[in-house]
This record gives sequence, C-alpha cells and structure tokens, in this order.
Amino acid sequence: MPKKVILDVDTGCDDAVAILLALNSPELEVLAIGTTHGNVEADLAALNTLRVLEWVGRDDIPVAAGAAAPLNQPLRTARWVHGEDGLGNLYLPPPRGKPTGEHAADQIVRLARRHPGEVTLIATGPLTNLALALVKEPRLPELIREVILMGGSAFYGGNLSPWAEANIGHDPEAAAAVFAAPWPVTMVGLDVTMAALFTRAMHEELGRCPRPGAQLAHRVLAHYLDFYDRVYGRDGCAQHDALAVAVAIDPTLVEAPLLPVQVETRGEHTRGMTVVDRRALLADRVPELFPDRDRWHVRVALKVDGERFLSLLLERLTR
Amino acid sequence: MPKKVILDVDTGCDDAVAILLALNSPELEVLAIGTTHGNVEADLAALNTLRVLEWVGRDDIPVAAGAAAPLNQPLRTARWVHGEDGLGNLYLPPPRGKPTGEHAADQIVRLARRHPGEVTLIATGPLTNLALALVKEPRLPELIREVILMGGSAFYGGNLSPWAEANIGHDPEAAAAVFAAPWPVTMVGLDVTMAALFTRAMHEELGRCPRPGAQLAHRVLAHYLDFYDRVYGRDGCAQHDALAVAVAIDPTLVEAPLLPVQVETRGEHTRGMTVVDRRALLADRVPELFPDRDRWHVRVALKVDGERFLSLLLERLTR
Amino acid sequence: MPKKVILDVDTGCDDAVAILLALNSPELEVLAIGTTHGNVEADLAALNTLRVLEWVGRDDIPVAAGAAAPLNQPLRTARWVHGEDGLGNLYLPPPRGKPTGEHAADQIVRLARRHPGEVTLIATGPLTNLALALVKEPRLPELIREVILMGGSAFYGGNLSPWAEANIGHDPEAAAAVFAAPWPVTMVGLDVTMAALFTRAMHEELGRCPRPGAQLAHRVLAHYLDFYDRVYGRDGCAQHDALAVAVAIDPTLVEAPLLPVQVETRGEHTRGMTVVDRRALLADRVPELFPDRDRWHVRVALKVDGERFLSLLLERLTR
Amino acid sequence: MPKKVILDVDTGCDDAVAILLALNSPELEVLAIGTTHGNVEADLAALNTLRVLEWVGRDDIPVAAGAAAPLNQPLRTARWVHGEDGLGNLYLPPPRGKPTGEHAADQIVRLARRHPGEVTLIATGPLTNLALALVKEPRLPELIREVILMGGSAFYGGNLSPWAEANIGHDPEAAAAVFAAPWPVTMVGLDVTMAALFTRAMHEELGRCPRPGAQLAHRVLAHYLDFYDRVYGRDGCAQHDALAVAVAIDPTLVEAPLLPVQVETRGEHTRGMTVVDRRALLADRVPELFPDRDRWHVRVALKVDGERFLSLLLERLTR
Repeated sequence: MPKKVILDVDTGCDDAVAILLALNSPELEVLAIGTTHGNVEADLAALNTLRVLEWVGRDDIPVAAGAAAPLNQPLRTARWVHGEDGLGNLYLPPPRGKPTGEHAADQIVRLARRHPGEVTLIATGPLTNLALALVKEPRLPELIREVILMGGSAFYGGNLSPWAEANIGHDPEAAAAVFAAPWPVTMVGLDVTMAALFTRAMHEELGRCPRPGAQLAHRVLAHYLDFYDRVYGRDGCAQHDALAVAVAIDPTLVEAPLLPVQVETRGEHTRGMTVVDRRALLADRVPELFPDRDRWHVRVALKVDGERFLSLLLERLTR
Repeated sequence: MPKKVILDVDTGCDDAVAILLALNSPELEVLAIGTTHGNVEADLAALNTLRVLEWVGRDDIPVAAGAAAPLNQPLRTARWVHGEDGLGNLYLPPPRGKPTGEHAADQIVRLARRHPGEVTLIATGPLTNLALALVKEPRLPELIREVILMGGSAFYGGNLSPWAEANIGHDPEAAAAVFAAPWPVTMVGLDVTMAALFTRAMHEELGRCPRPGAQLAHRVLAHYLDFYDRVYGRDGCAQHDALAVAVAIDPTLVEAPLLPVQVETRGEHTRGMTVVDRRALLADRVPELFPDRDRWHVRVALKVDGERFLSLLLERLTR
Repeated sequence: MPKKVILDVDTGCDDAVAILLALNSPELEVLAIGTTHGNVEADLAALNTLRVLEWVGRDDIPVAAGAAAPLNQPLRTARWVHGEDGLGNLYLPPPRGKPTGEHAADQIVRLARRHPGEVTLIATGPLTNLALALVKEPRLPELIREVILMGGSAFYGGNLSPWAEANIGHDPEAAAAVFAAPWPVTMVGLDVTMAALFTRAMHEELGRCPRPGAQLAHRVLAHYLDFYDRVYGRDGCAQHDALAVAVAIDPTLVEAPLLPVQVETRGEHTRGMTVVDRRALLADRVPELFPDRDRWHVRVALKVDGERFLSLLLERLTR
Repeated sequence: MPKKVILDVDTGCDDAVAILLALNSPELEVLAIGTTHGNVEADLAALNTLRVLEWVGRDDIPVAAGAAAPLNQPLRTARWVHGEDGLGNLYLPPPRGKPTGEHAADQIVRLARRHPGEVTLIATGPLTNLALALVKEPRLPELIREVILMGGSAFYGGNLSPWAEANIGHDPEAAAAVFAAPWPVTMVGLDVTMAALFTRAMHEELGRCPRPGAQLAHRVLAHYLDFYDRVYGRDGCAQHDALAVAVAIDPTLVEAPLLPVQVETRGEHTRGMTVVDRRALLADRVPELFPDRDRWHVRVALKVDGERFLSLLLERLTR
C-alpha cells in the first residue's frame, strides 16, 4: 500500500524535481498538490506545477493554488535562484489545465478529513498553507499521519539570512504554528540537503535518458547548477525538495533524532531560525534536564546517506 | 440604501448587544455573521450568535463559525468577564439552527467578491478571520468598502495586559496583518469605549421595555454590570462592541483622525499593543516629518460623543 | 536641612533652567553635577554646565563628565531641538573651569558612599551614568535616598518615537536597569511636563529681571520657545527638566501614584517605552490581581499643578 | 618582547587553568587581572584569582574586582559546573592578599591609556567589564591592541540555552557592545573549545608533576572532569578559557576567518546567541553580497589543532 501524500510546493527548480521523484515512486500515491508563495508567487507556482504534471502526462492530479503571501510580512520571492519563470528560465508554454479553484489549505483539510490518519504532508515551500489549515481545522494534527518538510537548519546556518533558511524565513509565524502543533514532523533542513550535492556528472547522466521526466529535470537543473557554481563555487547543486520526498519514500536515508525545535519569530538577527537544542542529544543521560521530553514531536535530520539518496533520485528519474 | 455589513464576533455579552443594535438599525443590512475565538471559543460564539438571532426571530441571517485559535499563540478566552456560557451565565437553551458549515473567513471572501466595494466589515473580536481572509484573497482590500473594528488603545492602556487590548492581544499577528492591509480601517478602541459607560439607570430603562431584544440585552448586561462594579468600581459598563456598530451607523459619533498605527508583535512588555503616533496630529504643521502620510489609512477614534451614542443605543434597543 | 542632591544632566536648554532652579532653591544642596550624552555629547554637556555655573558664580560645584554613549546603541543627539551648541545657539565663550576628571558614574558612587541614605539623584538626561553606577556598586539602591528623573511617558506617547520619550529612548537598557533597581524612583514624564507650558508672557517677565540667572534663562529659552511654536504650534515650551527639580523641592506639585513600570527594550515599534499599567490604579479594589504590589517602587507623575509649578519656577529664577 | 595582556576572568575551574597557562608562558606579560560575575560572583572570582596567584607565588599581579551583575538582566552563576566555591569544591584557604580596590573596568581603561596600542585583552567570562570600559572611554578601541575572548558559538549551539554560550548569555548587551566596537576581536567559542577535550590520561600526567601549578590544575580539574563525564558522557573536559590564552600565545592554533557577527539580544529563543553568517565565507566569490565587508573585525575560530593545543597546555603546566 503506497503512502497517501499531499505535496505543498512553490515550484521552483528543485520542487519540479521533487514532484517528478514523487510521481515516479511506487511507495507514494500523490493525492493532490497545493502551491504557496515562496520561490515564486503561489499562482505561478500552480502554473509551473501544472506544467510539470502535463509534461509527464499526469494531469489527473489536482493542483490547488494557495497562500499568496506570508501571514505577517511582505511577499518575497527568490527569482535570482530559480529564474524569472521559476523553472530555470525555460519559459515553457502555458499549461492546458487550470488549478481547481479550491484553496490549497482547504484541500489539505478536505483530504485529511476524507482519509483520517492516512495522509502524509510533504511541504517543500513556506508553511503558510499548513498554518492556515491548522487554524481552519484545529483537529488537523490528529487527522494527518505526519508532516515531512524541507526547511530550517539545525547547525548549518541559513540561506535567506545568517540563520533563516528560506522556507522558514519566508513565513516565520506559519512555521512556528506548524512546529508547535502536536503532529509528527520530520525536518529536512540545510544540514542534510547541503550535504548531498547533485553533481554535473549526474546531470549528464540524466541528460542521456530520453524519458520526458528525465529530460525536464535535466533542463530545469541546468540553471540551478550554474547558480551553485557561481555563488558557492561547487560542482553540484542541492536537491533540497527532492530529499524531503526521498525521506517520505525511505526514512532511513537520514539520521533524524527527536529534538525540541522552536521557531524564532522575534529576534533582531535571528527571525526565521529553527532553534534546535543540541544539548537534548544528551537527554538519555541527563533526563532531569529535559522535563518536556515526552512532548517532543519533531525529528531533525542531522545526517544523510548522500550516496544512497542521489542514487535513488537518479534511478527514479531515469528508469 | 443601507450599508451591507458582515459582523465578525466572539459572542460575548457586549457582542450580543452589538448584534441587537445592528439588527435594529435600518442603516445597516446584516448580510452574514462570522465568529472567532476570543471571549469564548469560536464554536460557542457561533451557538451564542444563533441564540441571539433566534431570540429576536432573525434566524434568516447565516452564521459561519471561524478561527478556532490565534495564528501564533495558544487559545485564551475571557470567561471571567463574560460568564461560563459567554452570555452572562444565562444558560439559554441550545439554538435550533446551526452554523452554515462555511468557514467565517471564506464567507467574508465569498461575499466580498459577490458585492465588490460594498461590504463593511464590523469586527468585534480578535482579527483572525480577517487575517485569514486577507491571505486567501490578497485583493480583499480592494473588494471591501471599509473595516470598522472594536480593538486596540491609543493612549488609554490595555485591558488584557498593560498595553494590549483584548481583541488585539488575543491575536497580535492577525491584527498586524489587518492594520497593514491598505483598506480604510476605523479603530474603535478603549480610548472611546471606556469613555461612554452604560449606567444602571439605563439598564433599568432597558428592563422596562417588553420587546424581546431589550429583554435579552437586559439579562445579558446584568452580569457585565456586576463585573464593572466589582473590578472598576464604576456604575456602568462599557459597550465596546456596540460602539463599533454605532460608528458604522453614524461615523460622527467619534472624532477619529487618520493616524499611523503599528501593531507590536515582538515586545517583551508590549506584545499586542496598537502603537499610535500622537506626534502625527502635528502633521499639517510639520509635514516633512511624516513622509508616508499619504499611506495612512487608519482612523483612530480618540473622542466619543458618549451621550449621543448611549441615547442611540437605548433608543434602538427599546423602540 | 536642605536635601543633598546630585544632578545628572545633558545640558541642553531645559537642563540649564533646571540647574538654575536647583541653585536658587534653599531646599536643595547641590553636591555635584554629572553629565551624560543626550541633548548633546557628554563632553559638551559638561562645558555647558560649567558655563551655566560660572555665569551665576557657582563654579564651586564640581562637574564630572560621564557616559559618552548609550550602553547598547549608537549615540544620537538632539541638536535640532537645543541648537548646535546645546544652549539655544548662544555660543557662550568657553568656561574657565574644567570637569574634575572623575567619571560621573564614579562621582555618584563616591558621594553615595560618603553620605549613605542622604543623596537624592535628579536625572534629567539618559540614564547611562546611573546604570553604570549600579553595576559598579550593586548596593547603590541602599545608599541612595531616592531618584527623581525626567523621562518616560505613561499615557501621553513619546517624543523621540511614537512611544519613546527621549531620555529613555536614548538608552533603553540603562533605563531598564534604573527602573528595575529597588530604590524609590519618581518618574516625571511627558504626561506632566507637557501639561505645564512656560508661556511667552512668563518669558518676558523673566527678561525684565536683571539677575544673571534670569538673563541666562531668558536667552536660552528664546530658541526653545521658537521650536515649540514651530513644531507644536503652542505658545509656550515645556520645562521638562525643571519640573523634575521642582518635584525634588516640593513633591506635592504632582500626583504620582506607585505603579508598576517596565522599560521595553525589545519591541519592534516600542523600544524605549516606559510601560505603565493603568489597571494597577485598581489595585486597592482587586489586590489579588497584583501579587507583586509590595515591590512597586516607582511613583509615576500623572498630574501636575502647573500653575503652582510655573509660579515657583519664575519666582526662584527672578527673586 | 612578550605581549602585554590583561586577563578578565570569572574564576572558575577553567579560568584557573587559563591563568596558570598565561603565567607560565614567556610570550605573555600579565599586567593585571580583573574579575567579573559569571561562573561565580565577581568578588568570589577575585578571591579565587588571588588564591591561584598566591599558590604559584605570583601575588605581584594586581587583581581588581569588577562588574557584580550584568547590564540588563539578573545575576546568574554556574555553581553546578564549577562547584560551590567555584574551584571544584577544593575549599582552599582564604587568600592573604586583597583586590586592589580599583574597579576592573577602570583598570582596563587606565592600563590602556598607559600602554596605548600595546594591550591585549583576554576575556574568559561575561563581557560586562569590557562594555563598561567602552562606555567610560569611547576611544578604547584605538587604545587596545586586540581582544581575544572565550565565548559564543558559530555553528555548535549553546551551553546556557539552545544557542547561548554562557559568557555571552550571562550579559548579552555587554557582548553586543564588545562585538560592535571597532577593535580586532578573536572569538574562541564552543566550535573550537568543545573540539579539543582534555582527557583523563592528560589529567593523570598533570598529577604526576610535582610543580605547584600542575598540582593546583590537577586538583581543580578533577571536579570538572566528573561533570563532563556525568553530563556529556565524555572522557575529557573542555579547556574553554585556556584555549583563549593559547590563541594569544599562538594564533595559528585555530583557523579563524574574519566574519560578520551580531549578538542577538531580543530573540524569544535566541537571546545571547552570537549570530555568525556562514555565507560570508563566500565573500571572495560574491563580494557584491557583502558590501560591509571592510568593516568586519571579528575573527571567528572555526577549527582548532586540538593536539597541538593540548600539548602546549600540558607542557606549559608541567615543565
């Protein structure tokens, strides 16, 4: 039985790859996709998501556009990373299909009620839709099986600001609500996504595969690889969002201990930081220091088996 | 032509009176009512609202339950003010009708789209539903005619904390979003609501009127008057929410200059404060100090013609 | 027996008048004066203080320059209010004397130890020197008789920012330390200083008095009156600092109940605010709401007998 | 020519070892020592420092007690780490000598003026004395050669709270002032001090050396090793403070690139964090992203040659 999943995305180069990975993995059944502001606007993210689905003939999956802006700060996108069109400046033709008209947050609530306890949320953008869904349906944490999110940073530092990872920093209040709700969360953050770079050699391998999904991923990633080369001076780009999907497929790809996590919303220099307490790794030894330990519900991915992840990704995109 | 209004309430003793005032005023056409957490839970507020509507035979007005909790802090109610049932411990029988099932935020969006530029939002509770509606429909500020809200404090101080008025303090992030959105807002806060107390003599006059609405208001206010007597040592209770409705009926009841207002969400001692800049009253004299003056869109009620307001209220409830 | 006082000033037009008031009042014995950054730099404030003292032949009083900058933010002066020279652009000749070389904070500690329980601190600038003295001598609150400070605002609003009065806003962390220390504090803030304006008629009366002090005050205030005229459109200027000195002379000039006060250092829009809890005025009625009441140690001046204050001021400067 | 140094300490087990290392190193000339609150109270830290100096016959070095409390929060010590007496519960007899009576901050200012451009400050406790010295003498950054401080954390996390290292967290405002002042700072934080543990084998070697300093260090560290064993489950304790001294002796022991560092004072979960921007390591590649680069003045130790450091320490204590 595959896992029922809803993807919440801000498509985006790496979201596109993550969607393709999900579609090509028999372990997952993609019930629906919602979109949010983030890499681009929520509306454009919906169009881009439709473009990806149609490219690989999966326009049966409903796409709902969602939160157009963060809860408590102005909208900010990341076109300098993802290109003007959000898909590496490919300027694909407009999709034939359209978003469903339902709001992405409502779609989450509706599907969670229809499949209580069965749905895994995989969020690869800012968490505004999830926060809205939590406010609309306070029982959501009981209805959802688990949340796997790309976002945050434990000990790596940030990419939007010194300590804010972009998905958290683009809506800190929403992230605070999602991390505070009592559902199982797996945080796939920069500590692991930056530790498993997708190299140009892999990219070439992808390019040699004639399948439409592999070709789309190949084209989308060209721009992204250039960005990593220019800014980071690295041969290879992160596959932030695909790693979150991969963890849904195979949780053993990461070491992710239960740890207390707070989202800082007020700091002068730390707004949008996921504050992880490293000392809690000692909780078995000095449990008296961690009286709230039984309420920890966030697994923080600290290590990744990068080789296995990248093999899985490449194999799924090209087989 | 009456003003089309949507009430957003957390019924609540003074909300009940405000609803009755709106129903009895030909200047207003109540399209629908939404409820929020605040004085009580959003679900109970919906039941209480139905109780009020049915009491006066207005069950034609749809009631939508809304936000069950604030965006970014735990739920907190005010039963010590409003009684265990939220209606002064009257323990009225359950209503016959039910909430519509639509979320209060969705109801706002739907009606705003149906009547673009025509709807006045009158909010007498925390602003969570309005904030949700803003995220769901970013064009809402263009679709809504104006917002009149009971909440905040300019120079009076707070009632929830030293400087947080309850409706703002119960969801500061939502309030920040509502005050930041570019729609006309009139803030009816403690500066004016605490300056026009409804006395026991007025209460007795209300009791002498046999009309159902007057009788309900009379019963609901008995508890509220006792609270003001005990805590404030005052003969008379505020009619916070009714004053917001009254300002929708007759804006000349208050002096409300355009002023810059920020909602403090981060302060150690000031979270939930509406930060009003008194110096802006000098803007005509020294305009160079207020370069953003053309973006001010909040009228802050600083003075009230209390006598005229209370006469209006009494007359409308008893005629 | 006169009260032994140390003045801590940032001279400044209104500081000059305050110093003259103190010198002319038999109720006070000015042991020494310290200076701080604020209206001008601490060094210039020391020179200006010497200028005032020498003008009236009181160069026997030692002047110590103090804190050159706030504890935790950049230096900021207020020349647009006080003139380039800090004394209304009089450009008085340099003083003959010099500051003592001792730091103003050390001067406070030394004199407090010499006269334990006897010294009243009158602070009319930012509170950096007092905060430094508290860190250097943690027993200072026991050694000092009381602190009377011009600063803050209870319900009036701010003059440096929407809610920061300048003396607090120029060093919020220092103010937080001074308000938190367990000594008796009287806060003479904008609620009272802005309610007792010194008119042009009084200014003319001052000018008719040939005494050197009256003449100096007359000349210094001309610039200050123009500022109030231009910005506030008021006939008359506040005598912020002189009112603090006057309260030391005669505490009955103000109504100043004991109230809890916190200094906000972290707010996004409220940094530097003195957060006063109006609800505490109800503490006699509902003491259970104020369990920390026996630790309140700040009297907050809420009302002033303006006529009596201005008469006192004029009389002392001109007799 | 040895480096002239002033130690600012909160002695403390590891401070004691750091002092012994400094005294035994010909590269350093210890002009004076000041003490601060931190591991213990500033007064006890002064007595403990005298105990260490007298134990090894160096009572010629003046000891000045300093800041008794942080600038803007209550005093908090760390006896559960350092023992009731601060020296591993050795309960050494009282020292014969006394602190000089000068305040530690004044001692810094005086010596900096006497030896302009020559003095290295080595701070191994909270930075309150340094902050006070900066306020008293704003030219201090020009007068001091450099600051080497044990404190903070770049990517390791905190030990006082999830992200506050103790020396910073014990006085965040002071740390903010010290990091903001334009002097060369080397931050020796938990990233390096936790990466070079002093093992029980080294401890035994120390115990075999009959020299008084080695014997004292051996006794003081017994308690500290037990703490690390119990809490961290590690064979070995950090030598936080000694590493700062070692970096003064030999800067090549650490890799410490120039990086922008901000001290967070306002965060809800991050107060006391040293916010280091990892992205600045890319500044050579994308200089346009770091326009303030020429003002960076803090070297952040990210890697340590632990073997070389521990050899140096052991050799200096035992030779």
